[in-house]
Amino acid sequence: MTLRYGRFAVPDTKARYGRIDGFTVRLFDGPPWRGGKETDDTLPLAACDRVCPVAPTKIVCVGRNYGAHIEEIGGSEFPKEPILCLKPTSSLLEPGGTIRLPRESERVEHEIELGVVIGHRCRRVPVAHALDQVFGYTVVGDITARDLQKRDGQWARSKGFDSFCPVGPEIVAGINPNALSLHARVNGVERQAGNTRDMVFSVAEIVSFVSQTMTLEPGDLISTGTPDGVGILAEGDMLEMEIEHIGVLRVAVRKERV
Amino acid sequence: MTLRYGRFAVPDTKARYGRIDGFTVRLFDGPPWRGGKETDDTLPLAACDRVCPVAPTKIVCVGRNYGAHIEEIGGSEFPKEPILCLKPTSSLLEPGGTIRLPRESERVEHEIELGVVIGHRCRRVPVAHALDQVFGYTVVGDITARDLQKRDGQWARSKGFDSFCPVGPEIVAGINPNALSLHARVNGVERQAGNTRDMVFSVAEIVSFVSQTMTLEPGDLISTGTPDGVGILAEGDMLEMEIEHIGVLRVAVRKERV
Repeated sequence: MTLRYGRFAVPDTKARYGRIDGFTVRLFDGPPWRGGKETDDTLPLAACDRVCPVAPTKIVCVGRNYGAHIEEIGGSEFPKEPILCLKPTSSLLEPGGTIRLPRESERVEHEIELGVVIGHRCRRVPVAHALDQVFGYTVVGDITARDLQKRDGQWARSKGFDSFCPVGPEIVAGINPNALSLHARVNGVERQAGNTRDMVFSVAEIVSFVSQTMTLEPGDLISTGTPDGVGILAEGDMLEMEIEHIGVLRVAVRKERV
Repeated sequence: MTLRYGRFAVPDTKARYGRIDGFTVRLFDGPPWRGGKETDDTLPLAACDRVCPVAPTKIVCVGRNYGAHIEEIGGSEFPKEPILCLKPTSSLLEPGGTIRLPRESERVEHEIELGVVIGHRCRRVPVAHALDQVFGYTVVGDITARDLQKRDGQWARSKGFDSFCPVGPEIVAGINPNALSLHARVNGVERQAGNTRDMVFSVAEIVSFVSQTMTLEPGDLISTGTPDGVGILAEGDMLEMEIEHIGVLRVAVRKERV
């Protein structure tokens, strides 16, 4: 069964996690991946402001995980192992938020990616059991300052600016991650179209691989790489990122005002 | 005035932050960099088990920040800007803990670094005001699987294994970070000796630079690069990392048992 979870601004208190049941949000007493339970509190979905649906202790990104994207960024070989980098949690952006283009970059690009939300603390999980550690799936924008990425060599800065990690709008549990279509549109024009079946490393292989290095905590986010079609974002753009069975993550794009 | 802070295991409750006053620990009701206040509770220092003295939302590392280390790893040019990477918080290790050598690497190396603990939420801080954002300083081991670092290109995995970020033993506030000697010893034999005055980018420049990209939160940790003399760690080693006016961070080294 497919279940949908989000996090919602609630007046006069902290944001709360909830399960979306038709037009109603059934609020939880904590993050569902940390044992939070459904309460009797409900809110009408239309009245809720969404906040970022995850609060991970770390965000792990995988580079070069779709063949056609490896070619478009000038690579020729498929990696033998997943290439990992980390985004800081300060880069998280809520659904409907605004990506702020920093003055340091002249080429900020969109990368739509399938996000994996971890459900259980784990380390060194075999591939065969890796999907058992997953709570659900979401849409992630792995926003990247391409010029700084090339200049720095290391990717932490170019992928780490505030607002460079939009996530949401929801976490969806109970879907198969291995054949989901992904689409990114800018101002209504399709820029990226792909399918998770074309990943170099599958979701299960990625979760297992990351867990060989670092203990994964409930709520941690792994972003699984982007298909081809990455492109530049400009002041005033509206970026829509859609993944089949998950939904559409919409964010605006503005220059950062300093 | 120099003040010393640590975090201590307290029986039957969560670990608590405390200020070290001679042979006594004066316990706080929360992290001192998040408004925690000193309470009337005290413990004898000798009876306290230390845990990791920081709980950052992110750990930012600076690469190639001492000239002699740039040469020893085969580089020739000083970087024009600090090179950033991130370690996951799951890599944190408490003082007196044990670095676990993973089976994936045949060359895990020590890197002693001055750690900076942020005291105030900040973004885009000018260099002239950067040290005002600092709570205090500590010793960080930026443990690195050198073979994986070279193979991956990106540094997140090679620096991100569990136990690869020993920190402590204390956070020291009220010292000048710009002329501190650093020493790393393995089994009592000196391997690294340096001084923070030889940094390519100063602590103030680094804090300012990182804050141009990402909002820094109270308690966040920035590790400022290592002097030359990095070297391999082996099963059974005892690694001691000492920084002037801060103290000695001791950790053991063992192979990971899987």
